Amino acid sequence: MMAAWYEQTVDGVLLDITGVLYNSGHGGGHAIPGSVDAVNRLRRAGLPVRFCTNETTSTKAALVKKLQGHGFTMTETDVFPPAPAVCSLLKQRHLRPFLLVHPNARPNFADIDTSNPNCVVMGDAADHFTYENMNKAFKLLISLGEPVLISMGRGKYYREEDENVLDVGAYMKALEYACDIEAEIVGKPSPSFFNAALEDMSVPSDKVVMVGDDVVNDVGGSQACGMRGVLVRTGKYRPSDEHHPTVTPSGVVDNLAEAVDLILNHR
Amino acid sequence: MMAAWYEQTVDGVLLDITGVLYNSGHGGGHAIPGSVDAVNRLRRAGLPVRFCTNETTSTKAALVKKLQGHGFTMTETDVFPPAPAVCSLLKQRHLRPFLLVHPNARPNFADIDTSNPNCVVMGDAADHFTYENMNKAFKLLISLGEPVLISMGRGKYYREEDENVLDVGAYMKALEYACDIEAEIVGKPSPSFFNAALEDMSVPSDKVVMVGDDVVNDVGGSQACGMRGVLVRTGKYRPSDEHHPTVTPSGVVDNLAEAVDLILNHR
Repeated sequence: MMAAWYEQTVDGVLLDITGVLYNSGHGGGHAIPGSVDAVNRLRRAGLPVRFCTNETTSTKAALVKKLQGHGFTMTETDVFPPAPAVCSLLKQRHLRPFLLVHPNARPNFADIDTSNPNCVVMGDAADHFTYENMNKAFKLLISLGEPVLISMGRGKYYREEDENVLDVGAYMKALEYACDIEAEIVGKPSPSFFNAALEDMSVPSDKVVMVGDDVVNDVGGSQACGMRGVLVRTGKYRPSDEHHPTVTPSGVVDNLAEAVDLILNHR
Repeated sequence: MMAAWYEQTVDGVLLDITGVLYNSGHGGGHAIPGSVDAVNRLRRAGLPVRFCTNETTSTKAALVKKLQGHGFTMTETDVFPPAPAVCSLLKQRHLRPFLLVHPNARPNFADIDTSNPNCVVMGDAADHFTYENMNKAFKLLISLGEPVLISMGRGKYYREEDENVLDVGAYMKALEYACDIEAEIVGKPSPSFFNAALEDMSVPSDKVVMVGDDVVNDVGGSQACGMRGVLVRTGKYRPSDEHHPTVTPSGVVDNLAEAVDLILNHR
C-alpha cells in the first residue's frame, strides 16, 4: 500500500489563504479556528512556509496587514499573489491593460501604463463586475487584431461570509466565449506561478505539500507541479469535491490544524 | 455549379428582428433603411413571413408595438420570441424559475409560479446582470440536486446604438462554468424553436430562407434545420463573420432590402 501523503518527507509547505487561513467577509472576515496556531507550529518546526493565493481584491500590503490583524505570523515576502506576476508580464510584453479589477486592487498597477490599452487584465472585481464594465472589456477585446485577456486565476467561486460567491473564472469564461478567445492565467493553477513560490523556498516540489480549499486550482494545480495537494473541509469546500471527476486529492483533512498535526506527528 | 441561394424555390421567409429590421437603442432604436419596404414587398408578393427573434428584454406585445411604430407591418401572431416557449416548458415540467431577466420582460412570466424556485431562467438582462443577481442565480443552482438552467438564446453579443454589447450567452457561459452544468437553450439556434415558426407557415424547411445578422445562431441554426441561411451586413455583422470557422452562409447580402430584391427578382 502506498504511504499516506504525510508519511513521505515534507520539507516545505504552501498554503492557500482564503478558505484555509480565514474566511473573507465584510469587516475583514474571521480566522478559521486553529489556523493561526497551525502556521506558528509549522514555523517553530523549522518548515519553510509560503502563501500562494489568487486573492486579487486588495494589495499585498493590505492583505498581509489584515492577516496579521487576525493573528497570523507572516511578512509580505512570504506571500505570492497574482498581481506582481502580472505586472512583470505586462512590462516584458509592452502591454497596456484595461483593468477589470476591484478598486482596492488598482494600486497594484500604479506603475503600469494604462493609456491607449491593448489588453485586458481581470481579477475578482466582485460588485464591480457590472454590465457596463464587462462591456468596456468586451469592446476593447473585439477591437484588437490579436486580443489578449489575462485573468488572475480561473476560480469558479469562493467563500465569503457564510456563502459561496462567483469568482473571476466565471466572468473570464463570459469574455472568452463572447470574443472567441482563451485567457492567459496568472495565478493558480498556472505551473509558473506555483514554481515561483517553490523556488523562493528552494525546496523540490516532491518534498512540498500544498493545502487548499479549491480542488481544481489548489489540489490539482499543485499535483501537476509534482507536489502533494491536500484538500481542507473549510472555506468553499463541498462534499462533492471529494469525488471530483478529474482530481483525486493526495489527502483530505478537516482543516489546516489537522493537516499540520499529521505533518508534524510524522517527522 | 450549384444554383445561388435565391435561384432555388422560396416559399417562405423567416426574419430575425434586431439587426435586420432595426437596430435597438435608447428611445426605441431606429429602422434599418429599406427594411420596412422589404417586409411590405414580401407580403405583397404573397410570401409567408415570420419573425424569429431571441429578443428577451420586453414582452411580445411591446416589441410588436415598437416595430409597428417604426412602420413595420406585423401582428403578434407573426412573431416568435423565446418567452412563450419557455412558459410552456416550465408548465410541462412543473418548474418554478428564479428569473434572471430584464424587468421589462417579467410580464412574460406573469402566470408562472416563481415561489420556492427549482430552476433558473435567464434572458438578456443587460444592466440587470449585476454581481448580486448573478450570485442569486448561482447560489440557487448549486443548491439544487439536479440544477436546471434555461437560457433564452446563446448569443454572444448584439447591436445596440452604434456598438456591440454582451448578450445572454456570455452570462450563460459564466453560470455553466461556475456550476459545472450545461444550459438548455430555448430560442435560436434550437431546432424546435425554428420548427415552431416553420410549422406555423406550413412550408417545408428546404423552401424557406432565414435572414439574420448572427452567423452562428441565425445562419448556422437555420441551415441545421434544412433552410438556407442568409447573412446580412447590418446589425452586429463583422467582416470576419464571412470567414467563420464552422458556418458558411448560403448567401451574404448588404441588408434585408438586397435579400428581398434577389428573392423577388428570381420568382
